[in-house]
Amino acid sequence: MLSKSQVKYIKSLGLKKFREQHGTFVAEGNKLVTDLLPYFECELLVAAPSWMATQGDLHPGELVVAGNGDIPKASFLKTPQDVLAVFRQPETDLTEADPSTQLILALDGVQDPGNLGTIVRLADWFGIGHIVCSPDTADVFGPKAVQATMGALARVKVHYTPLAPYLKESTGPVYGTFLEGETIYTHPLSATGVILMGNEGNGIRPETAQAVTHKIHIPNYPPERATSESLNVAIATAVVCSEFRRRAGR
Amino acid sequence: MLSKSQVKYIKSLGLKKFREQHGTFVAEGNKLVTDLLPYFECELLVAAPSWMATQGDLHPGELVVAGNGDIPKASFLKTPQDVLAVFRQPETDLTEADPSTQLILALDGVQDPGNLGTIVRLADWFGIGHIVCSPDTADVFGPKAVQATMGALARVKVHYTPLAPYLKESTGPVYGTFLEGETIYTHPLSATGVILMGNEGNGIRPETAQAVTHKIHIPNYPPERATSESLNVAIATAVVCSEFRRRAGR
Repeated sequence: MLSKSQVKYIKSLGLKKFREQHGTFVAEGNKLVTDLLPYFECELLVAAPSWMATQGDLHPGELVVAGNGDIPKASFLKTPQDVLAVFRQPETDLTEADPSTQLILALDGVQDPGNLGTIVRLADWFGIGHIVCSPDTADVFGPKAVQATMGALARVKVHYTPLAPYLKESTGPVYGTFLEGETIYTHPLSATGVILMGNEGNGIRPETAQAVTHKIHIPNYPPERATSESLNVAIATAVVCSEFRRRAGR
Repeated sequence: MLSKSQVKYIKSLGLKKFREQHGTFVAEGNKLVTDLLPYFECELLVAAPSWMATQGDLHPGELVVAGNGDIPKASFLKTPQDVLAVFRQPETDLTEADPSTQLILALDGVQDPGNLGTIVRLADWFGIGHIVCSPDTADVFGPKAVQATMGALARVKVHYTPLAPYLKESTGPVYGTFLEGETIYTHPLSATGVILMGNEGNGIRPETAQAVTHKIHIPNYPPERATSESLNVAIATAVVCSEFRRRAGR
């Protein structure tokens, strides 16, 4: 049985303030929790007896066999699953996010947690190990973002730091998407450097844009068709990352 | 002022059953409603006086100047905007979705309305005018899907029909994404035909897969890195559409 104070604690982790205070986050569902267990310290694991029975050795800080209604009480999901875990947030080391040796993704104020989680997931697919976020980017340890990563959070490190100083200290190219950029399909792309993506509504901030060395653009089709529309930021990130990796693979 | 029965009617359009019964759908927010107004018949427009003042000629079926709290009562958004509209669903003609003359997107059971709306938006960007969906694909006129299209619904026609017969009657290549498919970066891609994308969890159904003439795959990076992960369906659709259009543009 979950105690009232445990339910209250889990629910409090819906807010960034309490996630930071405790240094923890919540993940839910069989696949996600199973994917994360080998990578993060588990502080509290709440699961139905049927789920526990399918597991081998479990060493979480505290293990609660859930009664009926326990998980729904604590869950952030519309359709609660049969397992919920509280993990410790990992330590990150920004010096590992070195764009002179690898491709790094930088996010300048991405607001939507679902977009952020989806970006973490696609970064994993395209072999990008570090995402550097401006402090006002959504928190990757929020419940919605965690669920959208689909376990990629175990492999992709997410850093929060002011982008202008980070980019200033970095060596190598910084690619940013702009409406007036050159088409990404033909612009030279390197195997290392920073891919910088902006906020859903406003794009890349002027002070961050100063660090951009290559302005690129995903052309709409056909090119002569006028459009005032744009692509969702996760979609644009995917197209850009795919094109970088296509070139690298040739 | 919105009457109680108007609020009830708008709220009922959260359910597909009532959207089909009335042949209508709800859109919210200044940009989205403004984008859709020229394209769809507007049955009911609810807006704050400040919004009305910024508009030119409006010819909706019924115009309601919203009092305080009117729109929040009827809204499907967490943060209600200052305009909400009920539009009539457009007629569609499946014969226009002819893959012998253009690139068509087909969706086999995409479940998440946000994914569907995002796919409509990116289809518009990449100049795909028709999306053909299996009957169990999410309803594009549901509130979440409509919002995620960001107005692209005005330009992209979405059809619902059993895919197996549709694909059987079509001429030309049918491209489907499969784990065992050939890398999309080098596989020949034509300028016409069908791009078939599957359900979030289960991919393309076996009975639909029979129509696939080209099995393709988005490679993860680096290719030798084993991964059990996958890409979100909207992300995969974007990468595939981008690659088709990159080739066409050369």
